[in-house]
Amino acid sequence: MKCAGSIDVRDIDESSINIDPIQVGGRLTAEAMKAIIAYGDGYSICDNCRKPFRLDYIKTPPVDVFMRDLAAFLHMDVARVVPGARRGFQAVADTYVQKNDPVLITALSHYTEVLAIESRGGIIREIPKTAENLITPDATATKIEEVTRETGKTPSLLFLDHVDYQYGNLHPVWDITRIAHQYDIPVLLNGAYTVGIMEVDGKEIGADFVVGSGHKSMAAPAPSGVLAATSERASEVFRTTSVKTDITSRTFGIKEVEMMGCTLMGVTLVGMMASFPRVQERVKHWEEELAHGNLVVEALKSIQGTDIRSEYPRKHTLTRVDTTNSFDEVAKTHKKRGYFLSSALKARGIAGTIPGATKVWKFNTYGMTKAQADHVATSFREIAEENGIPSR
Amino acid sequence: MKCAGSIDVRDIDESSINIDPIQVGGRLTAEAMKAIIAYGDGYSICDNCRKPFRLDYIKTPPVDVFMRDLAAFLHMDVARVVPGARRGFQAVADTYVQKNDPVLITALSHYTEVLAIESRGGIIREIPKTAENLITPDATATKIEEVTRETGKTPSLLFLDHVDYQYGNLHPVWDITRIAHQYDIPVLLNGAYTVGIMEVDGKEIGADFVVGSGHKSMAAPAPSGVLAATSERASEVFRTTSVKTDITSRTFGIKEVEMMGCTLMGVTLVGMMASFPRVQERVKHWEEELAHGNLVVEALKSIQGTDIRSEYPRKHTLTRVDTTNSFDEVAKTHKKRGYFLSSALKARGIAGTIPGATKVWKFNTYGMTKAQADHVATSFREIAEENGIPSR
Repeated sequence: MKCAGSIDVRDIDESSINIDPIQVGGRLTAEAMKAIIAYGDGYSICDNCRKPFRLDYIKTPPVDVFMRDLAAFLHMDVARVVPGARRGFQAVADTYVQKNDPVLITALSHYTEVLAIESRGGIIREIPKTAENLITPDATATKIEEVTRETGKTPSLLFLDHVDYQYGNLHPVWDITRIAHQYDIPVLLNGAYTVGIMEVDGKEIGADFVVGSGHKSMAAPAPSGVLAATSERASEVFRTTSVKTDITSRTFGIKEVEMMGCTLMGVTLVGMMASFPRVQERVKHWEEELAHGNLVVEALKSIQGTDIRSEYPRKHTLTRVDTTNSFDEVAKTHKKRGYFLSSALKARGIAGTIPGATKVWKFNTYGMTKAQADHVATSFREIAEENGIPSR
Repeated sequence: MKCAGSIDVRDIDESSINIDPIQVGGRLTAEAMKAIIAYGDGYSICDNCRKPFRLDYIKTPPVDVFMRDLAAFLHMDVARVVPGARRGFQAVADTYVQKNDPVLITALSHYTEVLAIESRGGIIREIPKTAENLITPDATATKIEEVTRETGKTPSLLFLDHVDYQYGNLHPVWDITRIAHQYDIPVLLNGAYTVGIMEVDGKEIGADFVVGSGHKSMAAPAPSGVLAATSERASEVFRTTSVKTDITSRTFGIKEVEMMGCTLMGVTLVGMMASFPRVQERVKHWEEELAHGNLVVEALKSIQGTDIRSEYPRKHTLTRVDTTNSFDEVAKTHKKRGYFLSSALKARGIAGTIPGATKVWKFNTYGMTKAQADHVATSFREIAEENGIPSR
């Protein structure tokens, strides 16, 4: 069925249990669905924009309150919305990275952090991970020393993923931040997989910046995200324009340079706002989410030849699993080849895995009910059994 | 009525004739409304993202075809979607502007062009406008010479508004581009008020880049826009990442640095795509839009003391009008003060003017039927008459 022109209706989250690693924290709430219908038009949010003409001053709808609540939610001083987490990375890199400045990322950093630094001509250096796929304070200190010797400069910024996208591992960000600050290196905490699903206390972590993704973990439409800062850093990254033009002598009020003025409008902003009360509530139930996720993790672990590649016990619902010696063995002789797994899952109403993937793959159980988690767990066990893979 | 939490339902475009200067070209089509309901979730567009993992390669929904159609629509070689026109300006400024490079804008340029240059440390210089509020090739040539003498460098970029936001005037962009190219200065055509409502032929204009706004003129949700380029410039502004990391030796495929990887997903992109067939069609009916606009312009001109500040006859539906000697005279003694005008319009089902504004203000008639334009024209005449302002 088409919803418009050549565009098929999408109903994956209505018709299936979705375990897509990147999608589940971003699914809209019912409130967001209703709000985006009313605020479909881009400038809908601007009906009551009055002096000083900036997004965070709009009172109807209450954007001003939302921005302050967002900062408080992250335990940071100032928050702004941005068109995706990556635009938060870009704003911070633009502010702190000069050409040939060394900048630290980690061996598990997301590619958008790399692009933000590359566009500024920074020298990108990775903090290595341990054999357990964790970033440690020791490795951070060692790398800072190495890079400073190599380039003759202290790194101008550290990008640190709170939970990484590859393993869903929770890194000791508190201790890493403390190390970075000993060298006066500002730290950007990439909370794309944490802000909006787990409680994130930016102040306790010691982050100079906290970035979150609306469409990854805040039940908001894309592209959306949040960039929050301490008050000291806010005056830098959210500096206002200082231009006065030569002919017309125009000035541009309090528009923020790195934000390019106003950032999100219409569906993206209203969707974030509408979901926010539920997001504030749901972060308190993270332990339940982990418990549901563990049902699936344990089921996979019970299948012979199957290994959890993420840290264990799990501290996040995004998990990397290695089924090279279980499902991939089946794929070698199955008439559907590697597609048998996604096909068997689909037959049980489970979607969101990459069709054909039977070696190393990821899934995310976020947002499942216990009954759904039980069903997914049972499904994996059954698929293994049906295909002659013994249990452990 | 609330649609979610503390957010009021918005029904301005359902309940009124909206003449808001910035909103009317961005109102969603019925197709976009339907599509955004199905694609509310951010990563909805990514269900079928396969190697090489880039937005413009996705076949279902047909993002790949859309991107090519978008380039063809603008008579340019390559097109990408961006989170608002301003992010197109930013990508181009990031590519061509080094610190202390002179960059040309015009006396009528939008503030977002200024911010894009300011963030790169460029020296901003304006091409003056004529008494008729037009930018001319002569003024462009003179300014290029002046700036080159002043700074010792040829400007690295020229931002040129096709139709400006202040007067809605259509500038002789063909001739200006020709002048700029004599000095080898690339030209970015800001089509925020033209792309999606008028036919724009980037090749004929000679633009190196054409930028359009989804939420301003392409019936798409915010933030959305298009950045199109000639093939020569595309290889620069859409260059792919060249980073190889030091520890993990990771590379990042064909992600485009200035795009920060993928740009729009979910509602914003699907909304643009769903509206696009209608947008392609509607640009052919620009003369009708102008005719409807002229009904309102003539009505205002017929009111004594009222002057059209935009060029006349009108070549665009966005018009600046000066009612200092008509409606503002009424405001001085009216019990509602300046609010009488927006209030009288509201009583007639017309919305989108700034409450209290009776001196110099703007309106946009885009998208009106003839009957609606007649009603708006009659309403202005009646409001004048009721308040004792004679007709000319």
